[in-house]
Parts: sequence; C-alpha cells; structure tokens
Amino acid sequence: MPESQYTLIPHKVLSDFSAEVFMHFGVSETDALQAADVLSKADIRGIDSHGVARLRTYVDMFRIGRINPKPNIKIVRERKSVATVDGDSGLGLVVGPKANEIAMEKASQFGSGWVSVCNTNHYGIASYYPLKALERNLIGWSMTNSSRVVVPLWGAERRLGTNPIAIAFPAYTNPPIVIDLATSVVAFGKVEIANRQKKPIPLGWIIDEKGKPSSSPGDIYKGGLLPLGGTREMGGHKGYCLSAMVDILCCVLSGANWGPFAPPFALFEEVPAQSVGKGIGHFFGAMDIDGFEDVEVFKKRIDHWIEVFRSTKPASGHDAVLIPGDPEHEQEKLRSMSGVPVIDAVVNDLLLISRETGVPFDF
Amino acid sequence: MPESQYTLIPHKVLSDFSAEVFMHFGVSETDALQAADVLSKADIRGIDSHGVARLRTYVDMFRIGRINPKPNIKIVRERKSVATVDGDSGLGLVVGPKANEIAMEKASQFGSGWVSVCNTNHYGIASYYPLKALERNLIGWSMTNSSRVVVPLWGAERRLGTNPIAIAFPAYTNPPIVIDLATSVVAFGKVEIANRQKKPIPLGWIIDEKGKPSSSPGDIYKGGLLPLGGTREMGGHKGYCLSAMVDILCCVLSGANWGPFAPPFALFEEVPAQSVGKGIGHFFGAMDIDGFEDVEVFKKRIDHWIEVFRSTKPASGHDAVLIPGDPEHEQEKLRSMSGVPVIDAVVNDLLLISRETGVPFDF
Repeated sequence: MPESQYTLIPHKVLSDFSAEVFMHFGVSETDALQAADVLSKADIRGIDSHGVARLRTYVDMFRIGRINPKPNIKIVRERKSVATVDGDSGLGLVVGPKANEIAMEKASQFGSGWVSVCNTNHYGIASYYPLKALERNLIGWSMTNSSRVVVPLWGAERRLGTNPIAIAFPAYTNPPIVIDLATSVVAFGKVEIANRQKKPIPLGWIIDEKGKPSSSPGDIYKGGLLPLGGTREMGGHKGYCLSAMVDILCCVLSGANWGPFAPPFALFEEVPAQSVGKGIGHFFGAMDIDGFEDVEVFKKRIDHWIEVFRSTKPASGHDAVLIPGDPEHEQEKLRSMSGVPVIDAVVNDLLLISRETGVPFDF
Repeated sequence: MPESQYTLIPHKVLSDFSAEVFMHFGVSETDALQAADVLSKADIRGIDSHGVARLRTYVDMFRIGRINPKPNIKIVRERKSVATVDGDSGLGLVVGPKANEIAMEKASQFGSGWVSVCNTNHYGIASYYPLKALERNLIGWSMTNSSRVVVPLWGAERRLGTNPIAIAFPAYTNPPIVIDLATSVVAFGKVEIANRQKKPIPLGWIIDEKGKPSSSPGDIYKGGLLPLGGTREMGGHKGYCLSAMVDILCCVLSGANWGPFAPPFALFEEVPAQSVGKGIGHFFGAMDIDGFEDVEVFKKRIDHWIEVFRSTKPASGHDAVLIPGDPEHEQEKLRSMSGVPVIDAVVNDLLLISRETGVPFDF
C-alpha cells in the first residue's frame, strides 16, 4: 500500500456491512449474505480491486435501476450436463453463485456441468467459483466478459473486456492450485497508477488512438489495453484468441452482450448505443474428479506436482518458483488474522454509503 | 518459404504415403488412414511443423518400439459425461481421434463430454479435434502436454511443454472461428531459425541457463522458452498458469507423465530418468450447442461477431483485424488447389523413408 494510508478492518465487519447495504436496496437476506461473501473473498485474498472497493459501484447501479434486487434467475434451456441461465438483471454476485451451483449440481448428476449465463453483471473475482467447486471435489472453471477496454491484435479500437479465466485444482496436504488471470496483458488499474505517477509503462501494455504501442500511460484513454502477449512478436494474437474464447462462451452462447456491446459497470463509462443481447455473460464449468480418477490419488498427484514445481531451480535474482494461488493464499492467512488493509479513499466511500443508506459502519 | 527450395505436392499424395508407411509398421488400414488424415490437416492448413515433416519421427518411434501399432485403446474409468482413456502407447494420431470420438459421443448423450487421456504421444495439431466436433454442431476443445521446453516464471529449469489449447466455434455463412495456440511465448522452432540465421531475438522469448531473459537464440539450448507473456511485467505468470492448467487436465487427471517427466517425441531428446505415469496426456471436450441455444441462432450470432471484429478500425500499419483461424483457412483454400509446398529437407526425408520401407513415394 505505498500510495496512501490504510486502516486494518476485520473482514467480518466489511462483509456484514456489505450484506446490510445490499439488503437496504431490497436484496433478500440470503442473497445479500451470498453477495457479501463473494466481495469478502476478494478482500481477504488480497484482490483489493474486487472487494468492498466496488461496493460504491454496486450501490450506484442499484440507484439507477440497473440491478434487479429480486431477480427470478432461471434455466432457459438445458440438456443434462449443459444449460443456459438468465440472471434477470440480478447482482452478478448472486447470479454467479446460483449459476455455479447449477453447474456443480449437474456435475454431481452427470459427471460434469456447464452453464452459460446472460442478463447479469459484475460477478466479483473469477476464482470465487472454482474455490466453491473445490469444497465438493470438483474441478471448477469460471469466465466472464466485461466492458470493452482491450483491442484485438492489429486493431485501434476497444472491442473486448479483460475477460478472465479461473480454474482450481485441490491438493491433499498443500493449499489448492488456484489459477485466475485476466486475458489482457495487465489490469487497466496498473496503467492508471502509472499515469498518476507520471511514469512510463513497458511497450506492449497499451496502444494509442492510432493503434500504435505506446509507453505513455495517458494514451490509454483514447487507445486501449493490449491482450496478453502484447505485440504480435510477443504472442498478442494468443491473448486475443483467449479473450475471444471467453467472450463467445460467456455471451454468444447465452445471448448476452458480447464484445464491444457489453454494458459498463461504472457510472462514468458510456453505455454502448447498440445492444445485441441481455446484460453481460458468464460461463461456469464443474467436473467430478471421481469420474476420472480416485480423488485421493488425484490430490496426492497434485501435491507431487506442487513439490516438483516448487523445487525448480530459481532464476538468478529470484527466490523461488511460485505455485498459482500462492500470493492469494499468503494474503488469506495474513488478512484473516490481522484484518483487511482498506485504503482511506475506500474507507471514506464506505462511510458515505453508510450515511446515504443509514446502515451503520463501525470499525 | 524463404529458407529453402520446395516442391508443390498434392496433399492426397502426402496423405496416401503417410497411411502406407503407418501400415508398413503394422497399423491397421482404418487407423493408418485416420493418422494420415490428422497429419494431412496440418499440411493443408499451413502448419508445416506438424504434418508430413513429422513422419520421420513417427517412423523412428515405431523403429525403437515406443509406439504400439495395434493398441487396445480403452476407457479405464467414466461417469456419464466424463472419462479417462488409456491409449495403450498407440499413435497419438489414432488415440487422439478415438478419445475425441468418446467425448463427442458423450456430448450427444449427455450434452457434453470430457476425456482425459494417458499413455499416448504426439497427436498432431490441436485444432484437428475441435474441427471434427464442428461437423456435429459441437463446440470442441483439445489440449495436450509435450516434453519439457518451457520454464515456469522465475525458474531456470525447463518444466513444461508448449502445451497447446484449441477450441472452435461454427459460423453460419463464414468459415468457423478456430483458436489453436501454444501456451509458450513462441515456438521452439522460431528460436532455432534465428539461431541458424545468427539474428538476435526479442527479450522475453527465452531465458539462459541462469534464468535471465536473453536475446541470444543459442542460449535456448541450456536455458528454455518463456511461457506466453514472457517476463513478469508482461504477464509471463499468466502463460505459466495456462500451461500448468493444460498439464494438469491432460496428465495429472489421467495418470500420464506431467511436467518435466513427459517423454520426448524425438530421438535426440533425452528421456527423463524418472517416470510418474504413462506416456504423455491429452484432454478433449465437446459441448452440444443445441443444449445452450438454437444452433442456427448461435451460428448467426457468430457471423455477427466475426463481422463486427473484422470491421474494427485497423491499427496504423495494418490492413485489418484477423479472426482466429483466418490464416489457416486461407492456406486451406490455396493448398487444396495448388498443393502443399514441401521443403527439400522434408522431401528428402520422405524419399529416405520410402527407400527404408519400400513404400513408393511418387509425386
């Protein structure tokens, strides 16, 4: 937290406050607790951009009627292990867990479950969903689209969201392997921070309005982020392909707004003039490990995998090779004891929300 | 083909020759035709590294008894939409299509099918499998591991293969969207070419033996390829995560040799001293589009997606944004008429194989 002061707040306090705020806007207690649990998982795992820091936006969206507090989330089409779900404009933090639950139930019944979701919005951290699947010895998968900020390779216009992919694998004695990655080269926020600090950024993160790679972070506002890989010579076409895959599985399959038509999850972002579907889209998968292999055998193999990769000879200047999920697991251990460091700007936001809604915020 | 002379050979000639060679080594006619079809698809789609250019290696592997010409490929465990398949050391070009067929049959029966495969070897181009799924209105997925050549981020030792991911989506009037990408930043072959030409390579492709990013292509031999993204600041941890995902789905799930233990598919590469499973591994998925959405509606949406992305304002210096699969589709149109340009070194290899096996090679 080099940029500002922060306050350590127990995650339970943040989570209870979020739930009460959601209930203030008419969300049922069950759904509010569920939604708060998703935000809280981000806070406790150190993904600060996706936790209570977003509560402001959820509140804004409720205010302007863009979120339905009492959605009728339903399966609109299905065939055994697959289904399409309409989220009825509910909170993504509620629609996501329900659709993920459907995928997990299908996995229990049919060995696997795959659910594409339309008519939803921001669903929190992508890894929340595979982490739930782990509790049932399932391999869980989750993806979502988001509003346009990424350019397809060789393009000079934003066409895709940061479209993350998450998947997790359980171990026997080690913490699970948890993969959660945006398919853009970096987060938009990283470029914004560099811009505030007036620091150049590496060539390959963004393009300017003409589509040329730029090292001036301010160029992002008329340009866009590059997909993972960055330039063509560094494999930017691969990141574009992965982002396209997420876009299609989440949106084209379910009937949500794909590509540049995704509605934004922020008041200051322009809503696209054209709509080609309902809300944004998610995609969830769950596979029953027991259908492939004895669960204990699989978990012990994952332990072995972790040990072998951890023992890789480190590159000069580095201590060790990490296992996907290590940094978040470290944060979870730390923050569950010492609390979540909430920066002043977010504390002020929460205090303001408290005043606006009458929900007490004591920490 | 700037590096050498080539001869245009009809793909049918190459395919027939490959099939006859496989039969020479005891492969049944059905399996030989299947295997030749996979190689041929690579040749005709312009992925020259994975077509007849590999026949030499398949022959070598048969010679030293590393491939079983008459495998008993079987499901060793299953639960409705998921299964594990043992390839019995058969040709990957035969095991792959059979396992993919099982995934597709499961998709017809249960809405989706997911198959992890052990005891197999090189299965050709990853996109062959989703292309087959398209013929049945399925969304197909394919992944495979391969022998170690990629370092995990911050490591100085090779631990992973180039571990590709392929997926394809059918359109209504346009050619399908076909995604097929290695999770390494570039192919090993690109570094080898630069080394032969004594040209420096971009920083972020490889590390040297100490794990430091290097622009000297010769350093690859004691170092390794970086995963997609390259360095940490360009998102190399994401490529590492994707490669790990492929490794686990293909191998840890099925009981194949994962990570650094994958046996090589080349005579000159060292076989790892330790084995932790059987052969290498693949992973196939198939999802019934009709279980999510009316197939015609979906395909027309894909047409719309393609048109919108194609009409993206191009970056300065580029003509247009491509759709995944465009370059291969162009090659397929061209090569199916004019033949496959086979470089002299490969022609000589094929002539030698012809002499060794007595299978005529006339072109």
